[in-house]
Amino acid sequence: MTPVITAFEASPDGGRGLARDMRVRWALEEVGQVYDVRLLSFAQMKEPAHLALHPFGQIPTYEEGELALFESGAIILHIAGRHAGLLPVDAAARARAINWMFAALNTVEPPILEREMSGYTERDKDWYGARLAMLDDRVRARLGPLAARLGPGDWLEGAFSAGDLLMVSVLQRLKGSALLDEYPALTAYVARAEARPAFKRAFAAQRAVFERSSR
Amino acid sequence: MTPVITAFEASPDGGRGLARDMRVRWALEEVGQVYDVRLLSFAQMKEPAHLALHPFGQIPTYEEGELALFESGAIILHIAGRHAGLLPVDAAARARAINWMFAALNTVEPPILEREMSGYTERDKDWYGARLAMLDDRVRARLGPLAARLGPGDWLEGAFSAGDLLMVSVLQRLKGSALLDEYPALTAYVARAEARPAFKRAFAAQRAVFERSSR
Repeated sequence: MTPVITAFEASPDGGRGLARDMRVRWALEEVGQVYDVRLLSFAQMKEPAHLALHPFGQIPTYEEGELALFESGAIILHIAGRHAGLLPVDAAARARAINWMFAALNTVEPPILEREMSGYTERDKDWYGARLAMLDDRVRARLGPLAARLGPGDWLEGAFSAGDLLMVSVLQRLKGSALLDEYPALTAYVARAEARPAFKRAFAAQRAVFERSSR
Repeated sequence: MTPVITAFEASPDGGRGLARDMRVRWALEEVGQVYDVRLLSFAQMKEPAHLALHPFGQIPTYEEGELALFESGAIILHIAGRHAGLLPVDAAARARAINWMFAALNTVEPPILEREMSGYTERDKDWYGARLAMLDDRVRARLGPLAARLGPGDWLEGAFSAGDLLMVSVLQRLKGSALLDEYPALTAYVARAEARPAFKRAFAAQRAVFERSSR
C-alpha cells in the first residue's frame, strides 16, 4: 500500500526544503518506501476535507489505508517502526534515538521557530531589533549544548537515526542566518546529512514541485 | 528496577505542577510504576554530572539501569512501551495516540510557552501589550481547532492515552489566564484529567517537594 502525503502546492519557502513535508519525504527515502503526494493550495488546507485529516489545517499529513496522521514527528516515528533504517534495533539505543527526535521538536525547534516567526511578523515593529538579540541568545542556548554533545561525532548516537533527521531538519531553518555558522560542528553535521542520497532525492522531489508551481 | 527521575529541589512554579517532572510522575502513576526522585538545585542542574544526563541542563531526566533519557515526551513514550495503560494495543490506534503526543509538544505547546516566556522576560518592555495580543491569537489558533476536534468526547481518541496526558499538561500552563476559559470543552477536558487518581497522586508528590522546600 503506497502511503500518500500532503504538501504545499506552492511552498512559501521558495523550494528551500523547509516545509515539513520535506522531513517526511526524507524519512521515506531513507527506508526506500515509495509514496504519493497530494498538493494543496492554502485555501484547500482550510477546507473541511483537509481539516478532517489535520485539525490545525497544515501540511504534511500521512495516509496509509485507514490510518491518517498529521504530525511530522509521529509520521516519522511510524515509518521508522514499519521499516529498518531509521532507528536502532536495540531497545535502549532506540529509546535514545527517539529521545533526540523529541529534543529536536520540543527543545531545539521552538526557539528557532520563534525567531523565524519574529522575522515574518515583527520586522516592521520598533521593538524588532531588541527582541531579535534576545531570541538569538535563546537559540544559542540550544545550539551550544547541542554542538558540545555532538562533539567530534558524525551523528548524535552512533549511527544516523530519525533523531538526526529531525535535528538537521530543525537546524536547516537557520541557514542564511549567521547563528549556525558560530558552531562549525553543527554546520558540518548539517552538511553531512545533506550529502546523504536519501536527503538529495527528497530535496529534489520537493524542489520539483516548487519549480512547477512557479512557472 | 526502580527508575529514578530528577526534579527541581525548589520548583519555580510554586508547586502548581507545571514543571515537566509532573508529566513523568503522572505517567508513572497511571501505569503503577514506583519511582525514585533525585532533587536538584539550579546550580546542580548546570554541573557536569547532570549535563551528562541532560545536555540542556534541565529537568526531568529518567534513569533505568543503564538507560538515561531527558525529554519528557520520549520518557513517557518509553514508559508507555513498557507498561499497559498509556497507549492502545491496536497499531493504528496507537499511532494516532502518539500523533497527539507530538501535537501536544510540537504544535500546541510552543505558542503557549512563548506567551508564558513573554510574561517572564518582556513584561517591563513597552512592546509587551502589543505582543501579548498577537501571542494570544496564536494560542487561540491552536485551542479553537483542538476544542473542535475534541467535540463532546472525553478524550482525543476514545480512551485516555499518553496523548491526553501530554495535551492536558500543556493546557494547564494556561490556567490563571482567561484564554482557556474561552473554550469550555477544554476546561472540562483538563478538569476530567485532573480528577484521575493517578494525576492526583502525582500532583500531591510534586507539591510535597515544594512544600518541604519552602519551609
